[in-house]
Amino acid sequence: MRYYTLKHKGVAHVAASEDGKRAYILRAYLTMNIMLIKGHDGNIPGLAEAVDLASPNVEILSPIPHPRQDVICLGINYADHAKEAEGFDREAFSKEKPDPIFFSKRVSYSQGTGDVIPLHGDICDSLDYEAELGVVIGKEAYNVKAADALDHIFGYTVINDVSARNLQTRHKQWYFGKSLDGFTPMGPCIVSKDEFDGIPELDIRTYVNGELRQSSNTRNLITGIPEIIEILSSGMTLAPGTVIATGTPSGVAMGMDPPVFLKDGDEVACEIDNIGRLVNTVSADPDALARLQGIK
Amino acid sequence: MRYYTLKHKGVAHVAASEDGKRAYILRAYLTMNIMLIKGHDGNIPGLAEAVDLASPNVEILSPIPHPRQDVICLGINYADHAKEAEGFDREAFSKEKPDPIFFSKRVSYSQGTGDVIPLHGDICDSLDYEAELGVVIGKEAYNVKAADALDHIFGYTVINDVSARNLQTRHKQWYFGKSLDGFTPMGPCIVSKDEFDGIPELDIRTYVNGELRQSSNTRNLITGIPEIIEILSSGMTLAPGTVIATGTPSGVAMGMDPPVFLKDGDEVACEIDNIGRLVNTVSADPDALARLQGIK
Repeated sequence: MRYYTLKHKGVAHVAASEDGKRAYILRAYLTMNIMLIKGHDGNIPGLAEAVDLASPNVEILSPIPHPRQDVICLGINYADHAKEAEGFDREAFSKEKPDPIFFSKRVSYSQGTGDVIPLHGDICDSLDYEAELGVVIGKEAYNVKAADALDHIFGYTVINDVSARNLQTRHKQWYFGKSLDGFTPMGPCIVSKDEFDGIPELDIRTYVNGELRQSSNTRNLITGIPEIIEILSSGMTLAPGTVIATGTPSGVAMGMDPPVFLKDGDEVACEIDNIGRLVNTVSADPDALARLQGIK
Repeated sequence: MRYYTLKHKGVAHVAASEDGKRAYILRAYLTMNIMLIKGHDGNIPGLAEAVDLASPNVEILSPIPHPRQDVICLGINYADHAKEAEGFDREAFSKEKPDPIFFSKRVSYSQGTGDVIPLHGDICDSLDYEAELGVVIGKEAYNVKAADALDHIFGYTVINDVSARNLQTRHKQWYFGKSLDGFTPMGPCIVSKDEFDGIPELDIRTYVNGELRQSSNTRNLITGIPEIIEILSSGMTLAPGTVIATGTPSGVAMGMDPPVFLKDGDEVACEIDNIGRLVNTVSADPDALARLQGIK
């Protein structure tokens, strides 16, 4: 099943779709967070109202516009990205399986596909994209072993881990440069885990203005999803609704020679096969930022 | 005014006290987060029920048991701690005013004074304390200049930024080693800003089993509170209820030669003059951890 948060005629709903075309409004849940806490049996009630996802009356939002806690992120979790970001030796890096790097993104409001990414030009001179597979927790996880991790996953989404490289570097720890308002577009939907055979191995790509910049497959994660859940849950409880961004492959602007950072008007499309395409346009317009900031 | 979250005869309330002895239950607010969003005029309603904070019927909780977002933290924000933690030259460090280091702590449940700090002995071999002045935001802040920062502060509290040093190092970014369940004791109360003349300059101390380990004054912050708010709010909206832990002075276990990390049964008391004393006991008891984890 594909789960959406969408506005239909201006009102926000949780909706489920089998084909990504026609979605059924799930009135039993006020928000996706409530759905994730309560769970969903995968059945669409017979009387559920149907909407066409391509209708002009429908606006697809981020599946989780208001994550209940910061998004947990992995850094340097594809060997090819490790090389471009920190000059590591690819072969050695893959073999030694280093301990994962965890940081977090503060998300007051996650915007969906079709919305803007604010440029933050006053403080950011190096805006960058990072396509990532997002794992959404559905069942509380504490001290969960990798072999049991799948039981605790609700599904998967696409996240653009937008980054202000100058701030990420200037403030030493990455948190602030990853956490500016509007830096966590997500979507278009959460695809439930039963749509995949085990842990999904999916092609992941980013296009900037139609040019392919990132292209890999989630099977290339250095620390895989079951291990991520095992390590995190060895010390912290992962509540339903927790979002984990699993890291990005090579091809970010920072890794280009010379770097070609995002600028006003650029269209960034992050896509993962069988999940969807998250398209956002960079905007220097202060009103666009203010609108995002007002949705809280 | 001093604001508490307390349990009276088993029911949680927000309460206000002028003297830290007798508190009045503010029934207009279900939680401290709601109080912080709605604000408080500093007046206690004539009919408010009074409770004695020392009564056996009263349990003082963390003032904000469930922060709405991760707690924002500063690293290396006292020059003396910079020296012990990273070997920096104190004089040079104070003069050059380096850019602040920001990271975050995930807090599913913040415990109050009198509660345990879980040892997490399975994964942590180097449990450490960090007494910090916590700043609580009361009015949404975006693009706020240092000169206006005080307008956006609600008040101040005491935070113990508990840290698993081995995990903080192993996972490169500090987030995970700072975010284990039970790593953010806070309290005993929030003191509103009007109790201080401008930005407070207060003595801050930590005792472990009665032995003085940390002793400084919040005037020694490298990046001061107004500047912290200016920098953070230049890119991210700080909502009411946001908690900022402003960094710790020297004297943490990691800085001792040899380090004397916390162990089962140790009593850690973090205190800040005119705010209060936050006392917690380290516990290896899995039931004590499970109880904290159950309060969500």
